Amino acid sequence: MKIAYDGTHFCGWQEQPNGCSVQSALSAAAEQAFGVKAVFTASGRTDSGVHALGQVCHADMEVSVPPDKLADALNCRLPSSVSVLASAAAPEGFDANRSAKKKTYVYRMYNSPRRNPLKDRYSVHIKGATDIDAMRRAAQLFVGEHDFRAYCASRSQVKTTVRTVHFFNVEQDGEDITLSVCGNGFLYNMVRTLAGTVLGCAQGSIPLERVKSSLVTGDRSLAGKTMPPNGLCLYEVDYGTVLFER
Amino acid sequence: MKIAYDGTHFCGWQEQPNGCSVQSALSAAAEQAFGVKAVFTASGRTDSGVHALGQVCHADMEVSVPPDKLADALNCRLPSSVSVLASAAAPEGFDANRSAKKKTYVYRMYNSPRRNPLKDRYSVHIKGATDIDAMRRAAQLFVGEHDFRAYCASRSQVKTTVRTVHFFNVEQDGEDITLSVCGNGFLYNMVRTLAGTVLGCAQGSIPLERVKSSLVTGDRSLAGKTMPPNGLCLYEVDYGTVLFER
Repeated sequence: MKIAYDGTHFCGWQEQPNGCSVQSALSAAAEQAFGVKAVFTASGRTDSGVHALGQVCHADMEVSVPPDKLADALNCRLPSSVSVLASAAAPEGFDANRSAKKKTYVYRMYNSPRRNPLKDRYSVHIKGATDIDAMRRAAQLFVGEHDFRAYCASRSQVKTTVRTVHFFNVEQDGEDITLSVCGNGFLYNMVRTLAGTVLGCAQGSIPLERVKSSLVTGDRSLAGKTMPPNGLCLYEVDYGTVLFER
Repeated sequence: MKIAYDGTHFCGWQEQPNGCSVQSALSAAAEQAFGVKAVFTASGRTDSGVHALGQVCHADMEVSVPPDKLADALNCRLPSSVSVLASAAAPEGFDANRSAKKKTYVYRMYNSPRRNPLKDRYSVHIKGATDIDAMRRAAQLFVGEHDFRAYCASRSQVKTTVRTVHFFNVEQDGEDITLSVCGNGFLYNMVRTLAGTVLGCAQGSIPLERVKSSLVTGDRSLAGKTMPPNGLCLYEVDYGTVLFER
């Protein structure tokens, strides 16, 4: 299934003892619709407060409707903060997590003297002089295969911190700044720390040389701050194949 | 002051016995900041659930800060759903309501097979074939001076239902449809009913001839339905003068 959610009031994708997760909202809807217990596996977890427009997940379940009708069967039972955009029978051997080839995240900020309540839910307010060209130059330093150890929250436990960033685009439209990062995978908090780092470069608090050092040394203290979750949105997951007919 | 607010959880602009209003949020912040009771008058009331990006209001009050610093003094005491974008000393004789020359409202919809939780807060989900050219032709019928009696909620009590619409633009960007309506004033629920009417024309349920009749006869039953409040945003109020320095 391809799903979208407003992460504001969720504790994240993954089921937690305390708090509402997207995963448990989907399970509850499936149980209500079909009387089965289904566990949904996503392309990757999203943190508390992070949004998704193109999250992909799968479950092994027997349902009494054609696969493409699963979306509507669940939608009428899901809270308004989650929507199943498309559903289909998974290809043989498909796993939403392990089969993912590329992921694209979008991080949004807006630069204005005062807050805009109509933007705050999905974008982070920044102030002051911001050099977009410096931001673009910093973003380019991350493109390619690098050890992103400096861009990984300390509580993360992964085999390798080497990842490939396919592109890292910076777009400006009036006061709005949109970062689009596509890679073969991302470490815990990586996109939010990349966003904080290129913002630091744009605002003059982080020299480009320090960014280069961070990638060579893996020293977390050289990277920028981790930006708030509400600016982040999982935009697209690419499996190298068409999963959903339009 | 020029203010922006997310109207989702407000009962509207105006103070009500039950419910949170934008007006009372501003009064409470002013009282906290300066120890004075201030009553704010807006360019016009907005309904429960309607947003604003360029609402203008005034109050007669003595404050201990320069007028342009009033914004920040209030912002740090306002809920996150309201922001004062600019403040200034009012020109002699200024009244936010009576001095307003033109208002521009924006109404947003998105046309997709399934709901998008990231759009639902500020845009209304519509489905099915939508003829944008028919929508544009319908919108043009409202431009000029007309008796908008058919586009006014029955509980409205006004001296005259004649209003002038300066422009009524329809923009399409992918699945997003944005209506921008500028006029010298609007009746109660008028923009939401105009939006429902041009949507009816776009979806083929309202012929253009019926729209023409509605303006001639003032028959409410000829107009379309009143669209939900969350798609509506008071975008700008024009006083024919520069109120705020940039």
